Amino acid sequence: MSGIEGDLRKHIETLFPICRSITGQGLRDTLRYIAGQIPLTMHEVPSGTPVLDWEIPKEWIVRGAVIRSLDGRTVVDFADNNLHLLQYSIPLDRVVSRSELDRHLHSLPEQPEVIPYRTAYYADTWGFCLSHSDRLAMTDAAYRVTIDTSLVPGSLSYGECALHGQEPGEFLLSVHCCHPSLANDNLSAIAVAIELARTLQQRPARRWTYRFLFIPGTIGAIAWLAANRDAARRVSHGLVLSCLGDPAPPTYKRSRRGDAPIDRYASHVLSEAGHGDRVLGFVPYGYDERQYCSPGFDLPVGCLMRSPNGTFPEYHTSADNLSFVRGDAMTDSLATLLRIIDLAEADASWINTCPYGEPQLGRRGLYSKIGGASDGGGSRFDTLTLLWVLNLCDGRHTLLDIAEHAAKPFSAVAAAARALHEAGLLRPERPGPELLRPDASAVTAAARDESPVP
Amino acid sequence: MSGIEGDLRKHIETLFPICRSITGQGLRDTLRYIAGQIPLTMHEVPSGTPVLDWEIPKEWIVRGAVIRSLDGRTVVDFADNNLHLLQYSIPLDRVVSRSELDRHLHSLPEQPEVIPYRTAYYADTWGFCLSHSDRLAMTDAAYRVTIDTSLVPGSLSYGECALHGQEPGEFLLSVHCCHPSLANDNLSAIAVAIELARTLQQRPARRWTYRFLFIPGTIGAIAWLAANRDAARRVSHGLVLSCLGDPAPPTYKRSRRGDAPIDRYASHVLSEAGHGDRVLGFVPYGYDERQYCSPGFDLPVGCLMRSPNGTFPEYHTSADNLSFVRGDAMTDSLATLLRIIDLAEADASWINTCPYGEPQLGRRGLYSKIGGASDGGGSRFDTLTLLWVLNLCDGRHTLLDIAEHAAKPFSAVAAAARALHEAGLLRPERPGPELLRPDASAVTAAARDESPVP
Amino acid sequence: MSGIEGDLRKHIETLFPICRSITGQGLRDTLRYIAGQIPLTMHEVPSGTPVLDWEIPKEWIVRGAVIRSLDGRTVVDFADNNLHLLQYSIPLDRVVSRSELDRHLHSLPEQPEVIPYRTAYYADTWGFCLSHSDRLAMTDAAYRVTIDTSLVPGSLSYGECALHGQEPGEFLLSVHCCHPSLANDNLSAIAVAIELARTLQQRPARRWTYRFLFIPGTIGAIAWLAANRDAARRVSHGLVLSCLGDPAPPTYKRSRRGDAPIDRYASHVLSEAGHGDRVLGFVPYGYDERQYCSPGFDLPVGCLMRSPNGTFPEYHTSADNLSFVRGDAMTDSLATLLRIIDLAEADASWINTCPYGEPQLGRRGLYSKIGGASDGGGSRFDTLTLLWVLNLCDGRHTLLDIAEHAAKPFSAVAAAARALHEAGLLRPERPGPELLRPDASAVTAAARDESPVP
Repeated sequence: MSGIEGDLRKHIETLFPICRSITGQGLRDTLRYIAGQIPLTMHEVPSGTPVLDWEIPKEWIVRGAVIRSLDGRTVVDFADNNLHLLQYSIPLDRVVSRSELDRHLHSLPEQPEVIPYRTAYYADTWGFCLSHSDRLAMTDAAYRVTIDTSLVPGSLSYGECALHGQEPGEFLLSVHCCHPSLANDNLSAIAVAIELARTLQQRPARRWTYRFLFIPGTIGAIAWLAANRDAARRVSHGLVLSCLGDPAPPTYKRSRRGDAPIDRYASHVLSEAGHGDRVLGFVPYGYDERQYCSPGFDLPVGCLMRSPNGTFPEYHTSADNLSFVRGDAMTDSLATLLRIIDLAEADASWINTCPYGEPQLGRRGLYSKIGGASDGGGSRFDTLTLLWVLNLCDGRHTLLDIAEHAAKPFSAVAAAARALHEAGLLRPERPGPELLRPDASAVTAAARDESPVP
Repeated sequence: MSGIEGDLRKHIETLFPICRSITGQGLRDTLRYIAGQIPLTMHEVPSGTPVLDWEIPKEWIVRGAVIRSLDGRTVVDFADNNLHLLQYSIPLDRVVSRSELDRHLHSLPEQPEVIPYRTAYYADTWGFCLSHSDRLAMTDAAYRVTIDTSLVPGSLSYGECALHGQEPGEFLLSVHCCHPSLANDNLSAIAVAIELARTLQQRPARRWTYRFLFIPGTIGAIAWLAANRDAARRVSHGLVLSCLGDPAPPTYKRSRRGDAPIDRYASHVLSEAGHGDRVLGFVPYGYDERQYCSPGFDLPVGCLMRSPNGTFPEYHTSADNLSFVRGDAMTDSLATLLRIIDLAEADASWINTCPYGEPQLGRRGLYSKIGGASDGGGSRFDTLTLLWVLNLCDGRHTLLDIAEHAAKPFSAVAAAARALHEAGLLRPERPGPELLRPDASAVTAAARDESPVP
Repeated sequence: MSGIEGDLRKHIETLFPICRSITGQGLRDTLRYIAGQIPLTMHEVPSGTPVLDWEIPKEWIVRGAVIRSLDGRTVVDFADNNLHLLQYSIPLDRVVSRSELDRHLHSLPEQPEVIPYRTAYYADTWGFCLSHSDRLAMTDAAYRVTIDTSLVPGSLSYGECALHGQEPGEFLLSVHCCHPSLANDNLSAIAVAIELARTLQQRPARRWTYRFLFIPGTIGAIAWLAANRDAARRVSHGLVLSCLGDPAPPTYKRSRRGDAPIDRYASHVLSEAGHGDRVLGFVPYGYDERQYCSPGFDLPVGCLMRSPNGTFPEYHTSADNLSFVRGDAMTDSLATLLRIIDLAEADASWINTCPYGEPQLGRRGLYSKIGGASDGGGSRFDTLTLLWVLNLCDGRHTLLDIAEHAAKPFSAVAAAARALHEAGLLRPERPGPELLRPDASAVTAAARDESPVP
């Protein structure tokens, strides 16, 4: 197992047993683990704080939860699997008739052996989740139900990691970390985000500021947006990350805008990998893109997944466990993210400094000396790519526009632009830092070598 | 036979025998009949009045027209079928040689048993229409032709019925009623328009003013436009109605603009009914959309038909008779019109009053309490429809835009918008009357039940 | 052989033996021949003149070039075929080892019997082109190479023919004439351009000024652009002409803009001829459209060819000879050009002077007198075409827009517009010369009769 794949695996194995929720100790322990891997600022938002249309809920503390037969036999125990307890269940300790209890049980008749994952954050109720076969075996007339939880004024926790760049724009990467023992949704994305942050941190320079958010779903995104309206305005690109470890190929769900640069970058990368059919339109359901893409914010934030939410049988069940998540899938997700990010780093608008007629490329060593012969292969770009870049660098086309219009690989277009820049034939549209980094693709290639898509 | 179908049938049966033309007593009698059914203002425009590029013609009075053999046998008689006389024939009473007469005869060699319908409004000529077999049987050397008509200074008649609405815009419905004994073209549309006006009249409130014009073709539309340039400017939507009783499914011909709201409403309704292939582009030929869509006016007026003009063998012949028109086709036309009108009444732009992040739907009773479970069916709209409406109510999308973008039924989108409006989460884009009327679709449904498309 | 076909043939036969290059006597002799056919202004640009990013090279004078065996046997002789000498070879006279010589030989292993055409204008080197079989037969250890050339300060020659028109805009026709004995590329285009200029010259009036450039490729276009920035700005339409004599159907390569009027005219003409699939997108490679379509100029200049450069085996070899070029292909190219030009002459925006309602066509003799009968064929346009023209002449549609929207032949639309103009129902959008010339299409038809596409 490669270094990166081993690291990814270690993250999910360490975090799997913890019982996370949208508040509480499990969430806090998870953030503390992440803070051990990458620079992370911890935030605590007190219960009761108004955030946009919402209010930070009470903190949920869970110490245990058991259903016992009246003769003392344990039937369902939170200690066995933290999915057993409906999240945000209120405390309880009494004998409950089988029929009353049944209204508080959640199981999946069509998948009788798995435990579903259910929540009731704002509902003032209680419940247990269990396999359908176990439910059918509960034939006593009554059971003793003990739920040792508290709902107390506390706070909602989230973590933030910002890797600063040269331009004012930001690249947001948002990862929900409120799910208990579910490996693909969303420990896989937490693990990939950690390694992505590490890779970006090692780069000598970054064009964009990369802001990673490790937040509880919905309420965490809303809390961050409420406190960071200015930072939200600076988001030039963004991705919600989820389910990055299952065996399916990558899936990209477009931002609400549909044609934001991030949408083009992700579509381009997926299409190049032969997964153009896995680029989906925006739907106001799913993960925290629902919040970032609400009409008031309308941020250019899409969602990168492998299997989309709700489309695989293991989704939100005890079958979404460590054996469901694959190391090669996580490394491929990381490589895909790096390719998207490299596009976002390198894509820019350049200006042909010699736009009247073609410049004489021959005297600059950029053109074959013998006219009529075919292009010598072997260079990083062919003559036609060079001519396309010169022809379209008019301030109305970015390098990606040129690559797509000319049907040339982005890497060849970027290399040609670099050569023309060195020859003085291109200048950046806006004065600013040097934008093209040849080393970036090297990093990507390394990550790619480690994670061949099967 | 249902109530509405019986009423529709009665209208066409009463009106069929009358010899209408673009002026004269038959047209006036027809308008008087309509005035007995719905509130109708009668207009008379004197002969010689200049109207746009035209002039109101003399009034044509017809008392009879016969071709007799020289021994007194009646060969062709207007009294038998008012199609026999070329409309606007000048008076005549003399013996005509068979060869001269032939130049004034109109028949259809390919449909030898039917009488064609022909007109010569502005041509100062005369003629007879007859079946081709009768024409071939006319082998005498000469005939006595008697045409007892007058062309006198008089007036052109038309009727107007306006049902006032709450907004300043108008919905124009234009029906030509200048054809003599032709049942589909256009008694079917006269009958459907009468029942449509009755239905709209019974509504407690209307958003748009519905203006029905019962006019002679071309010159009537031109006369109305000449006298009503301001009203024309108020037309927000419009439909020319023609041939609404033949067995073909409905057909919609777009306005000149091609993408006016009425074009979208009619296309949406036809597509929902599985007739998306019967939405045709604008062509400057056909009915009075030619005038409304002339480039100076360019009104958003399309044309609703079943079989388009000239595409069915009965068109403009004696075979377009009472047995050709079907009651179920007319009731289906009425239902289709009501669905289009309901769209025009309900389609509007709403604004999400809580656009930053999703509003907390749970505390407003608009969201399932247990997260992770699938949507309970049974409500008028699902959660996803609700989220779509919230997401797209940004002032740039109407409810129909949302329905089409989200691929949800318009009725579900409208119901979700109503629920969100009641919860205070939506406000109308412009202050104004309450636009959504749940009873509207009930009326439509009733009409639909009575007229299943075969 | 028809008159035009004979003339075309004579041009290419006369010019074939001459050794042209981008400068020098062969080029000058060629221009002198053209000047004998059409009014041509000759230009000489001195060596060393800076032109845009380039500099006019020295003039290349070639008197002979031979490879001999050391015992005096002639192995390769420029006198046999002027393709044998690499263009712009520097002088040389010495014994060269076989292995050194090999680095200066150019042949085509896959087409072992033909001589390739190669150039080294700016490379300070020498070389020979020969058939691959001849190359393989050169087995001596050394050869005597004699290249009797000079590179001296002189000038670059080009010719210009302007046929003035009534509007300020210009129609540029650019033909490269720097290739030695290659018949299709580009004597065919020189011949067609001569006959096109003659045809246009005979017209009593022209809307556009037609400017023909006979120039060496690349450096000639650059020299002309450098000296004629104002004239370049006046280019309303333009075509680079190349390879107009091979058996393939015509091909049009769009201008950089992609949707300039010339792109629509050429696409329309090719589509009407059934060659819509031979309309190609712009690529910054090929002929002098590379210069005209450089981003600083971005002129509306496309390229008309039959076989595109590099797509036929005879391309840039001794097989592109007089027997490869076909007379019927050249006459078809001429007819195609005239159809494109007739579109450019006739396409204009007209305004309906009677836009409110339809004008009464009957009293102007433009409408059938008997309503209901079908259109009598036989006229140059049908009633529907007339109505389309009236409906769309609103200042936002040209006649070609109308023809394409209405799916009517452009000639019928133009004829209908002429009839409506005569009836006072249309006026030109801008006051100016009479734009429609019925005789123009007659010329085209004549040319067409002479050159049926096989």
